[in-house]
Amino acid sequence: MRKVKIAGVGLIRVSEYWDKPIQSLFAEASMKSMKDAGIDAVDKVYVSNMGGSLMQDQLNLAAVMADSLGTPGLPATRIEAGSASGGVAFHEAVQAVASGYSDAVMVTGVEKLSDILPEVVTTGLAMAEEQEYTAYTGVTKAGIAAMIHRLYMDLYATPEEVCMMAVKSHEHAVGCKHAQYPFKMSLQRAMSSPMEADPIHMMECSGIGDGAASLILVPADDEGVEVAGTAVSTDYTSIAARQDPLEMKAIKTAADRAYKMAKIKATDIDLAEVQDDFSINGVLGIEGLGLAKPGKGAKLVNSDDVDKEGKIPVNTFGGLKARGNPLGATGIYQLAEIAWQLQGKAGDHQIPDAKIGVAENMGGMASICAVNVLRRADK
Amino acid sequence: MRKVKIAGVGLIRVSEYWDKPIQSLFAEASMKSMKDAGIDAVDKVYVSNMGGSLMQDQLNLAAVMADSLGTPGLPATRIEAGSASGGVAFHEAVQAVASGYSDAVMVTGVEKLSDILPEVVTTGLAMAEEQEYTAYTGVTKAGIAAMIHRLYMDLYATPEEVCMMAVKSHEHAVGCKHAQYPFKMSLQRAMSSPMEADPIHMMECSGIGDGAASLILVPADDEGVEVAGTAVSTDYTSIAARQDPLEMKAIKTAADRAYKMAKIKATDIDLAEVQDDFSINGVLGIEGLGLAKPGKGAKLVNSDDVDKEGKIPVNTFGGLKARGNPLGATGIYQLAEIAWQLQGKAGDHQIPDAKIGVAENMGGMASICAVNVLRRADK
Repeated sequence: MRKVKIAGVGLIRVSEYWDKPIQSLFAEASMKSMKDAGIDAVDKVYVSNMGGSLMQDQLNLAAVMADSLGTPGLPATRIEAGSASGGVAFHEAVQAVASGYSDAVMVTGVEKLSDILPEVVTTGLAMAEEQEYTAYTGVTKAGIAAMIHRLYMDLYATPEEVCMMAVKSHEHAVGCKHAQYPFKMSLQRAMSSPMEADPIHMMECSGIGDGAASLILVPADDEGVEVAGTAVSTDYTSIAARQDPLEMKAIKTAADRAYKMAKIKATDIDLAEVQDDFSINGVLGIEGLGLAKPGKGAKLVNSDDVDKEGKIPVNTFGGLKARGNPLGATGIYQLAEIAWQLQGKAGDHQIPDAKIGVAENMGGMASICAVNVLRRADK
Repeated sequence: MRKVKIAGVGLIRVSEYWDKPIQSLFAEASMKSMKDAGIDAVDKVYVSNMGGSLMQDQLNLAAVMADSLGTPGLPATRIEAGSASGGVAFHEAVQAVASGYSDAVMVTGVEKLSDILPEVVTTGLAMAEEQEYTAYTGVTKAGIAAMIHRLYMDLYATPEEVCMMAVKSHEHAVGCKHAQYPFKMSLQRAMSSPMEADPIHMMECSGIGDGAASLILVPADDEGVEVAGTAVSTDYTSIAARQDPLEMKAIKTAADRAYKMAKIKATDIDLAEVQDDFSINGVLGIEGLGLAKPGKGAKLVNSDDVDKEGKIPVNTFGGLKARGNPLGATGIYQLAEIAWQLQGKAGDHQIPDAKIGVAENMGGMASICAVNVLRRADK
């Protein structure tokens, strides 16, 4: 199989785009990544999107997005994997190049939520849970995370220690031009915000944002940022069916496979992006990636290790909490940010000498997860 | 890149399954294909499905379906491409094996529509058209097909000649155990059925059916049924944007690419499955595949050539019209049927000495299309 590298990165700020259709967001990010790659055409496009069928009443989104580029005939595939759509689409796009079927592939994640009623978005998020056993009860995504959060608090950490996940993400977002909320947030502010789903405070949840991010993939040539490992895994969709509800097995098995492919251990990783759509999910993402032992994720988050100068910087542009979380696009934002770090193009967010970065992007309550490992080729 | 073969085929009858959840349909077809392949596990599953987000309020369907197999940890990807979901998912599944990322891949298409209000299904079908320029007008999928149908009649054929597409599909379905409507239908009966969207009669439209079909893909070994060519293409989503509304360019460009990959010409093909969700679409599918010249598809359908003993048998198990059309599963049914023909397992439907078969599976009004070519390896 051919090795694959990232040849271009493009994204728009996560924000509220009341005046633009989803096509415009998609095309803008896509054109930027093509420009960054110095190309004006690709062989294929992958579109990652979670809620277009609900939010824009749009199916067949890949064709509609390809049309927005003005390139009839372009092969196009839409991937939907809940919040993991971006990471899974990247995995599939890598395969398209690795197989030799395509020589230049674009993967663009896009999501538009701002102009949708909040209750529809809440419904959409819950639709990533199994409908007949979980979602039909009316439980929200925050409600499920709250149960996990409480169990974690009972066993391992104080509310403040878990909440620090959100605080750290905001700290990293300061100055980030593409972040939706690029400001510091104090622990006290977060802990005194209203309850979203007890014990999760509103300021521990990622917000609703529109966005699009795009990457260009081509065969590797021993320069730039390579895809060192890529894997997708699943788990029982219901947390009640799992032996240990605090063990996110889909994250762990995907990470194990991606590390094996990259021939690395967790300790080799220089930076990580984790899915902190809720503070507890960020903590469990860190544990699932093997960056901290089970039950020790919150402790790691409360140390200097996850800071920009630390041993393993996490969410260096603000994560889902502060950069923003445009669902199906989020996984691509994570990988775009890691690519910038490895290219030395992270500006004020640059961490020193980054060689290996990992992104954890999960859907549902980790019923599906994509883990992708990027590596600077000159390592 | 590795060559890929079909190692197993499984499907259930297209029907109305009021007593079974979508999980059961999925698992039943999947278990059958694994049994047919003589394996009890796969490396990865692709789930093709069009309307689950609307019909079952279910996103993240790949994880939910993987869960139904009782195999946590299985990598799973959902592909949605409107009615072309099956053919596009097959294309992606082939890449997974070709790339070397997976050694045994299952691709299972599933759709459950019977227990959904017909107007919701109609809405869902229209959602494959671009929402802001086409679907919002309230035009139905049948309405768009009707415009194309009328233009074709004005230029090339009588209403009866187009209608024969549906008559022939029903003729081929007789005795088919997995067909929803395995009976003959006379031209007179079809032409005297009520108008669905003038000039399309009700009996020229495929019905609504539940179904699931599954294929197992493994590296090829010069035996059995190989994937000779596979391609996806797109076109302007709006028929008003196309130079010639009767030229289905997404079909044509996908066919050109798939034939090139398979190193064949249209005249080398022994049998074809085309997307006859409306009679006119079947006719244009035949033309798009190059089996008849533009404007001559209806004439071909009215000849003996498309019959079981003819030069180029079309829809040998009844096509969408008579075998049934469970949207996201349809593309997999087409390929399963071709595989059976090439394996000599088509029973009463067997055509003599079939070596190369092609399936055309399009979404929207051919805004996206997958063309897949299968070949008997001993050819």
